[in-house]
Amino acid sequence: MRLLLLNANTSDFVTQRVASTARAVAAPGTEILPVTGNFGARVIATRTELAIANHACVDLLAEHAEGCDAVVIAVSYDVALLAAREMLEIPVVGITEAALLSASMLGTRIGIVMFGPRVLPLYQELAASYGLGARIAGWRAVDNDAPYAAGDQSEVDRLTVAAANDLVARDGCEVVVLAGAVMAGVPARLQAQVPVPLVEGVSCGVLQAELLHRLKPMKAKTGSLAALPARESVGLSDALVKRLSPSD
Amino acid sequence: MRLLLLNANTSDFVTQRVASTARAVAAPGTEILPVTGNFGARVIATRTELAIANHACVDLLAEHAEGCDAVVIAVSYDVALLAAREMLEIPVVGITEAALLSASMLGTRIGIVMFGPRVLPLYQELAASYGLGARIAGWRAVDNDAPYAAGDQSEVDRLTVAAANDLVARDGCEVVVLAGAVMAGVPARLQAQVPVPLVEGVSCGVLQAELLHRLKPMKAKTGSLAALPARESVGLSDALVKRLSPSD
Amino acid sequence: MRLLLLNANTSDFVTQRVASTARAVAAPGTEILPVTGNFGARVIATRTELAIANHACVDLLAEHAEGCDAVVIAVSYDVALLAAREMLEIPVVGITEAALLSASMLGTRIGIVMFGPRVLPLYQELAASYGLGARIAGWRAVDNDAPYAAGDQSEVDRLTVAAANDLVARDGCEVVVLAGAVMAGVPARLQAQVPVPLVEGVSCGVLQAELLHRLKPMKAKTGSLAALPARESVGLSDALVKRLSPSD
Amino acid sequence: MRLLLLNANTSDFVTQRVASTARAVAAPGTEILPVTGNFGARVIATRTELAIANHACVDLLAEHAEGCDAVVIAVSYDVALLAAREMLEIPVVGITEAALLSASMLGTRIGIVMFGPRVLPLYQELAASYGLGARIAGWRAVDNDAPYAAGDQSEVDRLTVAAANDLVARDGCEVVVLAGAVMAGVPARLQAQVPVPLVEGVSCGVLQAELLHRLKPMKAKTGSLAALPARESVGLSDALVKRLSPSD
Amino acid sequence: MRLLLLNANTSDFVTQRVASTARAVAAPGTEILPVTGNFGARVIATRTELAIANHACVDLLAEHAEGCDAVVIAVSYDVALLAAREMLEIPVVGITEAALLSASMLGTRIGIVMFGPRVLPLYQELAASYGLGARIAGWRAVDNDAPYAAGDQSEVDRLTVAAANDLVARDGCEVVVLAGAVMAGVPARLQAQVPVPLVEGVSCGVLQAELLHRLKPMKAKTGSLAALPARESVGLSDALVKRLSPSD
Amino acid sequence: MRLLLLNANTSDFVTQRVASTARAVAAPGTEILPVTGNFGARVIATRTELAIANHACVDLLAEHAEGCDAVVIAVSYDVALLAAREMLEIPVVGITEAALLSASMLGTRIGIVMFGPRVLPLYQELAASYGLGARIAGWRAVDNDAPYAAGDQSEVDRLTVAAANDLVARDGCEVVVLAGAVMAGVPARLQAQVPVPLVEGVSCGVLQAELLHRLKPMKAKTGSLAALPARESVGLSDALVKRLSPSD
Repeated sequence: MRLLLLNANTSDFVTQRVASTARAVAAPGTEILPVTGNFGARVIATRTELAIANHACVDLLAEHAEGCDAVVIAVSYDVALLAAREMLEIPVVGITEAALLSASMLGTRIGIVMFGPRVLPLYQELAASYGLGARIAGWRAVDNDAPYAAGDQSEVDRLTVAAANDLVARDGCEVVVLAGAVMAGVPARLQAQVPVPLVEGVSCGVLQAELLHRLKPMKAKTGSLAALPARESVGLSDALVKRLSPSD
Repeated sequence: MRLLLLNANTSDFVTQRVASTARAVAAPGTEILPVTGNFGARVIATRTELAIANHACVDLLAEHAEGCDAVVIAVSYDVALLAAREMLEIPVVGITEAALLSASMLGTRIGIVMFGPRVLPLYQELAASYGLGARIAGWRAVDNDAPYAAGDQSEVDRLTVAAANDLVARDGCEVVVLAGAVMAGVPARLQAQVPVPLVEGVSCGVLQAELLHRLKPMKAKTGSLAALPARESVGLSDALVKRLSPSD
Repeated sequence: MRLLLLNANTSDFVTQRVASTARAVAAPGTEILPVTGNFGARVIATRTELAIANHACVDLLAEHAEGCDAVVIAVSYDVALLAAREMLEIPVVGITEAALLSASMLGTRIGIVMFGPRVLPLYQELAASYGLGARIAGWRAVDNDAPYAAGDQSEVDRLTVAAANDLVARDGCEVVVLAGAVMAGVPARLQAQVPVPLVEGVSCGVLQAELLHRLKPMKAKTGSLAALPARESVGLSDALVKRLSPSD
Repeated sequence: MRLLLLNANTSDFVTQRVASTARAVAAPGTEILPVTGNFGARVIATRTELAIANHACVDLLAEHAEGCDAVVIAVSYDVALLAAREMLEIPVVGITEAALLSASMLGTRIGIVMFGPRVLPLYQELAASYGLGARIAGWRAVDNDAPYAAGDQSEVDRLTVAAANDLVARDGCEVVVLAGAVMAGVPARLQAQVPVPLVEGVSCGVLQAELLHRLKPMKAKTGSLAALPARESVGLSDALVKRLSPSD
Repeated sequence: MRLLLLNANTSDFVTQRVASTARAVAAPGTEILPVTGNFGARVIATRTELAIANHACVDLLAEHAEGCDAVVIAVSYDVALLAAREMLEIPVVGITEAALLSASMLGTRIGIVMFGPRVLPLYQELAASYGLGARIAGWRAVDNDAPYAAGDQSEVDRLTVAAANDLVARDGCEVVVLAGAVMAGVPARLQAQVPVPLVEGVSCGVLQAELLHRLKPMKAKTGSLAALPARESVGLSDALVKRLSPSD
Repeated sequence: MRLLLLNANTSDFVTQRVASTARAVAAPGTEILPVTGNFGARVIATRTELAIANHACVDLLAEHAEGCDAVVIAVSYDVALLAAREMLEIPVVGITEAALLSASMLGTRIGIVMFGPRVLPLYQELAASYGLGARIAGWRAVDNDAPYAAGDQSEVDRLTVAAANDLVARDGCEVVVLAGAVMAGVPARLQAQVPVPLVEGVSCGVLQAELLHRLKPMKAKTGSLAALPARESVGLSDALVKRLSPSD
């Protein structure tokens, strides 16, 4: 199968890291097709950048989804996830969604570690939107942005392990999600230092996308995720116009 | 005060109707500045179009907010509301948010009438995101799109009244919100036929925006709504680049 | 418009402070009519006193509401709020309700500071009754009753600022409500020391009452807030008897 | 033991019916002391009357609770329940609270039948305030006030049975509460016509009050239910003044 | 009345302690019939042991319930509670259920102290299953298993009091439940050191079971708790086979 | 990999059907090892039978899990799921859990069709225990037990399709789960007649178990799912004794 791995950030650094983890975890017959955003923030970290990324995401899908069998949205805010499900005939998975659903089969009380205190409410809003708010027993924001660069990770690793262990000790968490596309591959490095399972979204996202592809679900013919009716628009890319006006 | 009335649709029809109601309800000293989207759907009615409108909305704000005292986002999905609050120093109100909050002071159990069954989940997700899900006692989707055109409204009026009365009779609703920017001005026309208060978002939005302006709240200096740090981006309009990189 | 500002406490000290703030925030054409309770506690601070104040509140309304255009209940437990909405044709707003609704447009996660640990559950019950429990991210009770007297406020100011900053730092609150009628006017004094917006109920209550008056909502003709049917009673004040038996 | 049975209505009809059921269900050594409200509505059925009854209730308690071992508040809105728990050293139970708690041990999904559509929201607010909202699977309001008079009950019995059976058939209820003090004794009359247990509050209230008396719980020394501090007030009955100023 | 007191552990130590407390609290005419599990863990403390105890519990009921008037399940996880209600014609109460329901009439915010951090999630799942999750304001797990043996309890008493007082001070709890069958009789010993009521399940369970017996509820004829239809099975005890195939 | 497919019913009919679907959906390298319960009900359909099945399930696991890589519990009540996660080092998935998690990636509002009105509360309790209650927008119980036998399925198919379509039309469901192990393979047969995706648990369970195996999660070393400490017990099978006393 052909799996579109969509990074709505506009920097290749994150795309490369995510693609590398995706390829490591994917099944033998899965081809990973990584794409990077055409416009918007280098690294999405604010609500305003996320608003822009919604457009960038559907624009990328209009350009690249044809010929693919499933999509993983590799931005940890699962940007434009429901729009993508509406727009496409193929399964679409968000990486934080996939991490939360997978984690819920590994432990009862879920803890979440993220990077940057500013984004705490965004992840809480996301978990609540999946109806999983009651499963999250603790949140920790690590104030360190080393994961977004190629250098030494030892300090942020230390902080991440401390945050995860604190979630276990103080909040009774039984599984911990490391949130953020840049956490791809990190659990393997840190698992030995934490007494409960560590999970990240890119691995879970690729696996859940493969799962949905094998499940062969029908595309909804009615409701808020049904195929787009032909719609009139202005000022959009050719690919997106074509998607919004399928009969043209 | 100067109030930016933002319609992220790309058709003037809705903008004109919304502006007319806004001017009717605004205080004497309030100047209404209506703007229409630069790109995207003529009328937003799908999740994909809404994803695009997120970008269109922050783009309009970057272009027009300077010199204004408050903003009303006059798209009933309250598109990019939290991004706008983060991006700007001035108060921002969404019309459905304003309608729900105002309605909650007028009745205990809130009913919502919307247009098009496809959008039912979108409004439910919106109410839940405000933490108001438990206040909504009933939902009705009217399958008729006459409000989006200039012609005869008698049939859709009849359906709207029937839906509202059904919310009262079967779900015990004590106040009914007519959702949708095109409902601006409609409650006055239909109120006599429904035994509980009818409310719509544009009037409530303008009034709540004026209220917040008079309250003079401080802009948050920390958290997910604090002012944007200088950020690097690509492919955006000049206005938006300027907003995202204020120190340049 | 004429705005009834109802203090169900039986001490003028609170009434005067509340009226002063109300006049400062009200629109030019708004006349503030402050009234003080006829019977009950000097300052309501227990559940028993609140039970009595329910009666005192509807009694005051029966006596003073005629000729008014809206009511603000300036007791922070929003005593008899729904009874007042049932009893009167005009809009009624509670000050804590108004503070919470207004705050919800200024930040995502709301913090609340109150005075006296004994009253913590009362405010939690109140927020839950509005369906807003999930919006409240933190509570702090300051154990100091200086606000209820005319003397030096510097110590309680220091404690209030510390509590608000702790809500921001530890609970991620993005807006803080100072609960209590005696907090009228206090946000302006303390705002510079707290990095997120501070809000109190009297200002919000007056503004929301003016807003509802301008919205001109219909009085419900059915449901639990519809006008009182004629009812038989004993032992009540003349004004209240007249309200309960409108046809006499 | 001596059990105060408090009817905050001001009509003896309800008191007598309630007392009769209470005596039939009470243990041999339990003396039932029924009291009727000194002021307020003949039969409480609106929010305004309920606001008055809050005062009437604590006034009755101040007058009659001395020498009693427990209290049942026999008004189905459980008026002033938490105030009574604060004010007194002895256990206090509300009849609807007692019915809901007892019913929750008899079936999973609880249905509630009440009399008068106007009061539906009041019972919903009450169940929510006990944290039991999620246990209630269905609500039915019977529009008939025959239970409040001495005459023929056959029509209202027929409607009550139909409502209960509809809760079972359509909402999957496994136990049904008949709400209202006037439902005292009614379950025995109707049980044969409904396939799940019928429960009413006066019986449950007397039994739960006896249970709490036998459990001998300590009076809280801290928190919102701790004994009243000495407080200043005006315009209250002698009995209430004495309660509020215990040291005088 | 004859009350079956079911201990699904397989050690007599717990049975004896529980029976002693049950006899002390029961009404004069109540005969307590204690029974101990036929198979399974000596002391249930893991999910696996609890899974086994589900079977042990219905097996004991099949063997001993005949001739009894009510059942108390004296395992603090309330094992097989709903199965027992389905299987039997008589009332069945779980001790933690009974403690939570009784506590909810004694204080607003409930705290829970348990023994062993491993079992924290089990009690949280239990409280949530009763729809009472929102009533629980704090949890403390004491890491000490002295209560499960006959020796000196002074250290665990000290830890229990500290946990209860911490629930009051930090979480605002107004009543505290000591969870665990081995807590039978302990509140009386520790109450003087804690400023809010202490409650345990065996006393509450016996009293609630007596209450339900006096209430004489009908057995449900429909729904998930209705009497068992005749069913085919293999490999079960004779008593259980007889229960599952009543017509044989 | 070797996948244990556990049917806690004691009839081979269900095991065979489930195994056939599991083999059809499993990856090429997955060996399916189906096992049937040693004791208990032929077909589990009551709470009492489910209580017994908890024991049967852990007994089967003790006997057969060694040498396996993952487990699917193929009883739609996900019996003993958390006990199995505690007891074993390998991933364990319940079929209804898997169906709900997979469905939540295919549609916003989930509908559930089950067989037998008696079991409706059991599925509701299950969904709530996963924290997914808010995702379920509608429930339908089909009163027909044809799926549990080998004969003609046309009538039950017709009823199932009608129930699914009613969930779409009246409750706005966007994906429908057919609950019950006997629904294995049924979605393919009925999908063409329903306009939203149909999902069942056996397929989802096998795929999620394979996914978790590939994810290689660490076994928790602490919390309620950590490996069993050595424990004393009586009257259990040799296999179970060995599991509970690993050091023997």
